[in-house]
Amino acid sequence: MIKRLVIIGVGLLGGSIGLTAKKKNVAEKVIGVGRNPKRLELARQKGAIDEFTTELATGLRDGEFIILCLPVERIIEFLPQVAEHSPASAIVTDVGSTKKTIVEEAEKLFGDGRATFIGSHPLAGSEKSGVEFSTSTLFKDATCFVTVNEMTPLDKLQQVVKFWRSLGARPFILRPDRHDYLVSMSSQGIHFAASALAKAFGSLGEDANLLRLIIGTGFKDTTRIAKGDEELWLEICRQNVQYIAEALDKFTNELSEIKEAIKNRDFDRVKTFLADARNLRQMLD
Amino acid sequence: MIKRLVIIGVGLLGGSIGLTAKKKNVAEKVIGVGRNPKRLELARQKGAIDEFTTELATGLRDGEFIILCLPVERIIEFLPQVAEHSPASAIVTDVGSTKKTIVEEAEKLFGDGRATFIGSHPLAGSEKSGVEFSTSTLFKDATCFVTVNEMTPLDKLQQVVKFWRSLGARPFILRPDRHDYLVSMSSQGIHFAASALAKAFGSLGEDANLLRLIIGTGFKDTTRIAKGDEELWLEICRQNVQYIAEALDKFTNELSEIKEAIKNRDFDRVKTFLADARNLRQMLD
Repeated sequence: MIKRLVIIGVGLLGGSIGLTAKKKNVAEKVIGVGRNPKRLELARQKGAIDEFTTELATGLRDGEFIILCLPVERIIEFLPQVAEHSPASAIVTDVGSTKKTIVEEAEKLFGDGRATFIGSHPLAGSEKSGVEFSTSTLFKDATCFVTVNEMTPLDKLQQVVKFWRSLGARPFILRPDRHDYLVSMSSQGIHFAASALAKAFGSLGEDANLLRLIIGTGFKDTTRIAKGDEELWLEICRQNVQYIAEALDKFTNELSEIKEAIKNRDFDRVKTFLADARNLRQMLD
Repeated sequence: MIKRLVIIGVGLLGGSIGLTAKKKNVAEKVIGVGRNPKRLELARQKGAIDEFTTELATGLRDGEFIILCLPVERIIEFLPQVAEHSPASAIVTDVGSTKKTIVEEAEKLFGDGRATFIGSHPLAGSEKSGVEFSTSTLFKDATCFVTVNEMTPLDKLQQVVKFWRSLGARPFILRPDRHDYLVSMSSQGIHFAASALAKAFGSLGEDANLLRLIIGTGFKDTTRIAKGDEELWLEICRQNVQYIAEALDKFTNELSEIKEAIKNRDFDRVKTFLADARNLRQMLD
């Protein structure tokens, strides 16, 4: 059991971590750190945290397990202060959707008489944000990436893995660069692709009422993630430019090929394409 | 109340029409016509139809309202026989996902002492098929396109509109060509785009177990429709080549533009793109 779990940033993810940790007796005390006392009080009332402070140094005092639940660039911004004020015995992790830059930055600041930083990225969340949407089931059976490299102390890695497992998640250990490559295809590229579909459709020059009438659940599901907050996705994009651009290259190539086949009425190829896509998608269920 | 509602093809859509028509007292008797007596008996046991036959001419005898619930090319294939055997007073409609070719074919065969054909396309269904998945709520609040042109008798049009409304759907009257244009963007192009995403991801050369682990609900929702039956979508594609190719052009252009912005680290443009996409998608809810 963790004596003091410190959650920096108590939104959808941070709040859900607090709720789950308390429900599953993962932590004795959960401390929330944030900027807005009203939002923190809401988190306390919801049962996501026991106490809160707006002072980072105060929050980190005696912290045993510390988790940064902020947008990726604010994680990077906060790393120096967190490194400075965390107890040397503490484990620090995060929930950032990119890992290479964060882990590289952390390696300059942690270890060597300071706390240990190990990167995490739980595949949980939604297009909604805010502690009001947090639940104690958000991490149930969700994959959670945990990063490893030559610098990682394996006993601490084991504790981070155990932490996520105790919240119901399924830890998946990999290197930061490998993480950024994989999620560029499974998540970030998909976000830009869904956004492009929504934008192309919304920009048709048709009346909004008409557009609403002519879409079904297929369109809605396919483009739902485009409702995500642009600031969050912009930050993620800035931290993973190369791989996201490569992912979009793969998507546009695939789309251009099938477009050509359709234009040329090469229906054998169209059928093979549709069958391959169906098989590959079914395989993922 | 319709005396004899004839459903040709009792699958997901046909079965759901039967279930709903019986539940809402839209028809006195529902006749199912199909090829496979076992499947038809299943539909009867489920309450989707009252009687069935594998003989089209027998099924159409005394039919008042006749609806073809078949894949688009089989609709076209069956139109001559349906025109031949339907009572002259009958109304014939369909559920095909394309309308221009079907209506053009029907105009050669119906009217002029024969039954009246009016095209329909309810925006309902799923990647599943078969009468076992049919429900009496499938059409609730679903848009249903109903086609009109210079040849359409307005009293019969009104009856088709009333039919769909009585099943809980929201009829939307438009011209066949306009229909095919709109659904190429809202449905068919989206299907090919989701398929391209699933195919590009599934073809990464990574282990299937790994791919399953690294996808979240975002990926799954965005690519879910790629699980649809390739034969159905191939037929739809063959009937709407030009507009689907144009829709894919719009998507690839949008995707290429944002890819260039990302590569050039033009993050102002990336942010505007993401914000536009979010606004347009939210507008559609």
